[in-house]
Amino acid sequence: MKTTCLLMCFILVFFLSSCTKQESKSDILPNIVLVFIDDMGYGDVGVYGATGFQTPNLDKLASQGMRFTNFYSAQPVCSASRAGILTGCYPNRIGITGALFPYNEIGINPNELTIAEMLKEKGYATAAIGKWHLGHHKKFLPLQNGFDEYLGLPYSNDMWPFNDVGQPFENGGFRAGFPNLPLIEGNEKIDEINSLEDQDKLTTLYTEKAVDFINRNAGTPFFLYVPHSMGHIPLGVSDKFRGKSEQGKYGDVMMEIDWSVGQIIQALKDNGVEDNTIIIFTTDNGPWLNYGNHAGSAGGLREGKTTSWEGGQRVPFIIKWAGHVEEGVICNKLACAIDLLPTFAEITGGQLSENKIDGVSILELFKGNFNAEPRKELWYYYGTNNLNAVRKGNWKLLLPHTWASYNMPPGQDGIGGPRKNMKVEEPELYNMMRDPGEQYNVIEQHPDIVEELMKVAEKARAELGDLNVGLEKGSGNREVGKL
Amino acid sequence: MKTTCLLMCFILVFFLSSCTKQESKSDILPNIVLVFIDDMGYGDVGVYGATGFQTPNLDKLASQGMRFTNFYSAQPVCSASRAGILTGCYPNRIGITGALFPYNEIGINPNELTIAEMLKEKGYATAAIGKWHLGHHKKFLPLQNGFDEYLGLPYSNDMWPFNDVGQPFENGGFRAGFPNLPLIEGNEKIDEINSLEDQDKLTTLYTEKAVDFINRNAGTPFFLYVPHSMGHIPLGVSDKFRGKSEQGKYGDVMMEIDWSVGQIIQALKDNGVEDNTIIIFTTDNGPWLNYGNHAGSAGGLREGKTTSWEGGQRVPFIIKWAGHVEEGVICNKLACAIDLLPTFAEITGGQLSENKIDGVSILELFKGNFNAEPRKELWYYYGTNNLNAVRKGNWKLLLPHTWASYNMPPGQDGIGGPRKNMKVEEPELYNMMRDPGEQYNVIEQHPDIVEELMKVAEKARAELGDLNVGLEKGSGNREVGKL
Repeated sequence: MKTTCLLMCFILVFFLSSCTKQESKSDILPNIVLVFIDDMGYGDVGVYGATGFQTPNLDKLASQGMRFTNFYSAQPVCSASRAGILTGCYPNRIGITGALFPYNEIGINPNELTIAEMLKEKGYATAAIGKWHLGHHKKFLPLQNGFDEYLGLPYSNDMWPFNDVGQPFENGGFRAGFPNLPLIEGNEKIDEINSLEDQDKLTTLYTEKAVDFINRNAGTPFFLYVPHSMGHIPLGVSDKFRGKSEQGKYGDVMMEIDWSVGQIIQALKDNGVEDNTIIIFTTDNGPWLNYGNHAGSAGGLREGKTTSWEGGQRVPFIIKWAGHVEEGVICNKLACAIDLLPTFAEITGGQLSENKIDGVSILELFKGNFNAEPRKELWYYYGTNNLNAVRKGNWKLLLPHTWASYNMPPGQDGIGGPRKNMKVEEPELYNMMRDPGEQYNVIEQHPDIVEELMKVAEKARAELGDLNVGLEKGSGNREVGKL
Repeated sequence: MKTTCLLMCFILVFFLSSCTKQESKSDILPNIVLVFIDDMGYGDVGVYGATGFQTPNLDKLASQGMRFTNFYSAQPVCSASRAGILTGCYPNRIGITGALFPYNEIGINPNELTIAEMLKEKGYATAAIGKWHLGHHKKFLPLQNGFDEYLGLPYSNDMWPFNDVGQPFENGGFRAGFPNLPLIEGNEKIDEINSLEDQDKLTTLYTEKAVDFINRNAGTPFFLYVPHSMGHIPLGVSDKFRGKSEQGKYGDVMMEIDWSVGQIIQALKDNGVEDNTIIIFTTDNGPWLNYGNHAGSAGGLREGKTTSWEGGQRVPFIIKWAGHVEEGVICNKLACAIDLLPTFAEITGGQLSENKIDGVSILELFKGNFNAEPRKELWYYYGTNNLNAVRKGNWKLLLPHTWASYNMPPGQDGIGGPRKNMKVEEPELYNMMRDPGEQYNVIEQHPDIVEELMKVAEKARAELGDLNVGLEKGSGNREVGKL
């Protein structure tokens, strides 16, 4: 009995001492890990309804934190979406629209403040590991934008001289003249990714580098940005997960992404910093639907990538932050990737720049205060400068515009099928509370709401223009970075 | 220090003794609480994407247990769905189809084994609290079907001589001749529900009765079945939640349902039996879409109640069972409400009857063994005996049939709008992995899968008939109960 008692005391003392340790940690600025997936649909995580494969690490993360059901990427396409999440601006405000190509000579303007630059000022160690896509010339690369370290591809993994599944083009083609795909470390090309076998290694490579960064920086606050190249085509997956999903290759890739998140969390645990780390998981835009089982699913949302239907821009968003974000909570309030920068500013005391941004702090939502409504509206811009839709509260107004549906039969396995040009002729109104699938246009029933949303559209046009109505720019557009 | 040490020891002894207590409890059969909502859509719980209101208790429940994303009710309409969940049979096998009305003289056949009868044999105390809807004549009521106690309405809360919002019919009508709505306790009518004010009290009444049952039966294993009358129209909600939701009256009702679940869980806690209780939350069918903000949402699924599209029959399903079901796990495997009876049989050692049932035990899924595929296919029957669709694995084949869309403008606030007769002319194939919203018919691309699913349809027809092809019965249909 005496031994047992002593053992008990020992356990308790250990327990109490670890409590004390935790308290002292709360003064330290929290680490931030931002995992950002490519072309992953709203329905591609277990908790968001993924079928055909499981994502146990992400599901567990969600149960330990907060998950958003009305969260939007900044635009439904690669470069623009990345510009938005890193600067807190609608991407067209800072001149980044669509996807940048190897022949482009533009990139993120050095005048724009990124999350990394803001956090660096607060003493954070910073790293970007994965797909950059905000300009591949040195001037635009991560090291010139607040990141201490960089490893990854400067643009999309299909911007190479091969087709969607890594074979040479037989009769030339848009991408046939592209250079080999550079793998960059710091500011230097260290290797080339020129086969499907190379693509297979990317997720593992990024994961190992991320774990290494955590191991090296657990002592100071750090910001780790992991924009995976996957699940953008051409899909690559390691032996660990090849053939493991019922869904096909895309499912395998998502299982590996889930594994990668598990590895990162394990590294945080191993270094004793899990509880002082904000872990965020989200994606750049919806699935590229004409790629069959090489593409994801928007769940029940309409359409996917490149469209202003919900499937294009509504994305999974999971945050875990022990002691700050309550476990197992769902937030159904409107929020957008551009809100992260001002939220991190509020959390860390980081300084915003004098340039106007569009994001608002959503810290109150993270705290579970759902009476707060930090984001009241959302502007769905796409392409050069087209305002395709606006949302206010729980209503969405589609504005007349042309768009392309990729919800079409795929080509051969892994090759993209055709797209179909479409047009929204007249405004359409959807109730996001009852009809997130945008199946039922209720514009006839709510003239008052349409009027209110039209005012939002007018405000957006005055600020950032709208080519759909011939307005090339608004008063707030700034210059893109040039070589 | 000595005092502290003693205190610590005391705490630990208390902790260890409660462990021992738990161990001894594991020999006791688990309690089962089955909360069953009415006309609640797939999208009407926070974790399933509800927008416009929060469901914190249900979201928490999901984070502490397992949530299914491919779970189906037995049929997309009231009586049939209830017949299925309680007997483990496709409802048309036992002759319960559609919704029973006050003028009907049929009900559940006494020869059919219910979950309550099976568990009663194992020593369970049993109670049904809420909407029965398997025959309102004494012969068919809960007390004659394995339940020790009953309090509730014998059928839907709109089967009264008033319109959808509780006003008398001005020019007669289908329901004008219905009797006043009886509130039944045991086998006797104890009151009448004849105004919206009466409807407002129902959720609170059922909740209090459920808590009372738990308080009285915490010593023995118990089965508590709570089929709420809400959110079926006419909607009733107490002062506590009236006007609290952004969504409108239906949102208020769902907030009260969430509260009710919280009260039940608290009662389990208060009685020290939470950890030995299987708590299940699900619903009878999808939302009644032509009721505007008096109806729920199927999330992004297509259509709602009374249809064989996913919005009609795919429903939320949450299970918490401490120590048996892992926390925060998502199951995307196919399962159906008819699987509960055989699952409970396996858990409790309950004896099935000699009558053939259609359910299969899904205990392996509850255990997290997702390599198991206990349910390989699903037959979507609706109406008298129409096989409208079949699902095998992750593919769904819509068969030619007529149906009615309620996805139409609502009438005045709370009054149902029109419905629209529709027809599936040719078979349509949907991929449930990529397209749960059934937006994209892929029948041209997969002739082999169509052939496989046609075999499933033939098997179903041989067993249970199919009026769509003129087959009134199959070899397995049994007689409904008659007065």
